[in-house]
Amino acid sequence: MKVAIYQFAPTFGNIGKNLRRIEQELENIQVDLIVLPELCTTGYLFASREEIGSMAEPVPGGESIRRLEALCQWKGFHLVAGIIESADNVCYNSAVLIGPDGWIGTYRKIHLFWKEKTWFAPGNRPFQVWDIGMARIGIMICFDWIFPESARALALQGADILCHPANLVLPYGPDAMVTRSLENRIFSITANRIGYEERGGKKLTFIGKSQVIGTKGEILLRMEEEEKIKTVEIDPALARNKKIIEANDLFQDRRPELYLNQSQIPSPSPEAARNKINVNPIFHPGEADGD
Amino acid sequence: MKVAIYQFAPTFGNIGKNLRRIEQELENIQVDLIVLPELCTTGYLFASREEIGSMAEPVPGGESIRRLEALCQWKGFHLVAGIIESADNVCYNSAVLIGPDGWIGTYRKIHLFWKEKTWFAPGNRPFQVWDIGMARIGIMICFDWIFPESARALALQGADILCHPANLVLPYGPDAMVTRSLENRIFSITANRIGYEERGGKKLTFIGKSQVIGTKGEILLRMEEEEKIKTVEIDPALARNKKIIEANDLFQDRRPELYLNQSQIPSPSPEAARNKINVNPIFHPGEADGD
Repeated sequence: MKVAIYQFAPTFGNIGKNLRRIEQELENIQVDLIVLPELCTTGYLFASREEIGSMAEPVPGGESIRRLEALCQWKGFHLVAGIIESADNVCYNSAVLIGPDGWIGTYRKIHLFWKEKTWFAPGNRPFQVWDIGMARIGIMICFDWIFPESARALALQGADILCHPANLVLPYGPDAMVTRSLENRIFSITANRIGYEERGGKKLTFIGKSQVIGTKGEILLRMEEEEKIKTVEIDPALARNKKIIEANDLFQDRRPELYLNQSQIPSPSPEAARNKINVNPIFHPGEADGD
Repeated sequence: MKVAIYQFAPTFGNIGKNLRRIEQELENIQVDLIVLPELCTTGYLFASREEIGSMAEPVPGGESIRRLEALCQWKGFHLVAGIIESADNVCYNSAVLIGPDGWIGTYRKIHLFWKEKTWFAPGNRPFQVWDIGMARIGIMICFDWIFPESARALALQGADILCHPANLVLPYGPDAMVTRSLENRIFSITANRIGYEERGGKKLTFIGKSQVIGTKGEILLRMEEEEKIKTVEIDPALARNKKIIEANDLFQDRRPELYLNQSQIPSPSPEAARNKINVNPIFHPGEADGD
């Protein structure tokens, strides 16, 4: 299976121009799956919710989705790309999965970063996996990388490939995604953008370093700060074998009964964070477990 | 707070010699907390359960624990070290936390690696955190690193420092522990051993690279393949602030309700692993989510 990344610097606020560019750049490639950056039709550094609203589109049905559907139908590939989705009178930082037969699914970013918390509504649906025949696709967006639960939830649902559109500005994401692939024995494709945006007195520089990581944490591809499409051949079936050595299957060896039902541990209150109270059980020496 | 690692190559099967060496090497250091490798009193490459049984000791109460207690009392420090624990007619690959006032707690390795599955009983108690006053200590052992739930469970319970005795043979652990510290904003101290063992036709080489990682994923200390005690100063209070930027607190931003209650997702059966059935919900294009 041939997978690709298109790493580029979208032009802020010009959906038509960005779509034309995507159409032109993807016109001559022959791949099975291509991943584009987060918010790749609009750019990132918004000035207001109103501005975001003016660039948001329904999914499916909006102009961007229709054009990307046409592209996928023509080229016969699958595509994952970040867009602004309008639904229920709010906007989501979403990524769509589109194939030769049209729109397949949408992931709404669950962990919003920085100003996104004021710009977007947080994702309201669980992490989800789509089976496109040649592989099972899980989608996460940018900052989701820092929460191990994101990749874990997708891998436990059977994802072979994490498609990871991003607008990374912090330096940590690419190396951490190596750990995500390794701990889940799963492929990951991080499609980051490059360039910078400067608006309203703020400036963000995006780090590039788009990459494809193998199931053993191998860096199969890592880009520089270049505007380019790069491809690599992968075998998604490798992601169905969770054995790191014959005796250790990373999924069968999990022991959720001893993780203290971590998904239900409440977030610490601000007071707890300042160490005034402990909301979670902490064992002190005097009451330590007996034998 | 001054923390230390003693990285060395224990002599296989000679508890007395290994303890004397630990006592001698630690005699002249002034630290608050020192972490020793996994199974540091016995070595690793056992020939049988009987052999393990002959080197196992009750905790507390056994000779090794008594001598380490005496050392901690004399030196006034806290110590984490891997030993073989005997209890309930089985043996555990355990790590003990001991302070100036004696034994504090024991962690029994939850995720057993390779032959350990035949040698030891798997840990039967959840990950746990102990408050030693100057910091809250969580313990995990070696292969636990590959399961993100290990560090997460400890961090969510309030651990400031992951003490991580290890006998690492695979190359991935040290870099992955950088991600563990980063995603949990927590210190981690990996005390690995060096050298090799060759017994019963098998040979294992241990990779060294013991390290202390900061809450931002900084490598504060990483050792070569050297036999040495190394120390570094840390401020455990940094681990109480989970904000990676002002807008993003890594614990408050978790959204367990959207992680599909991952701790309860069953391990895939061998059939599922071979892709004959799907035990987890996979969404296919035809039944993809609507809008």
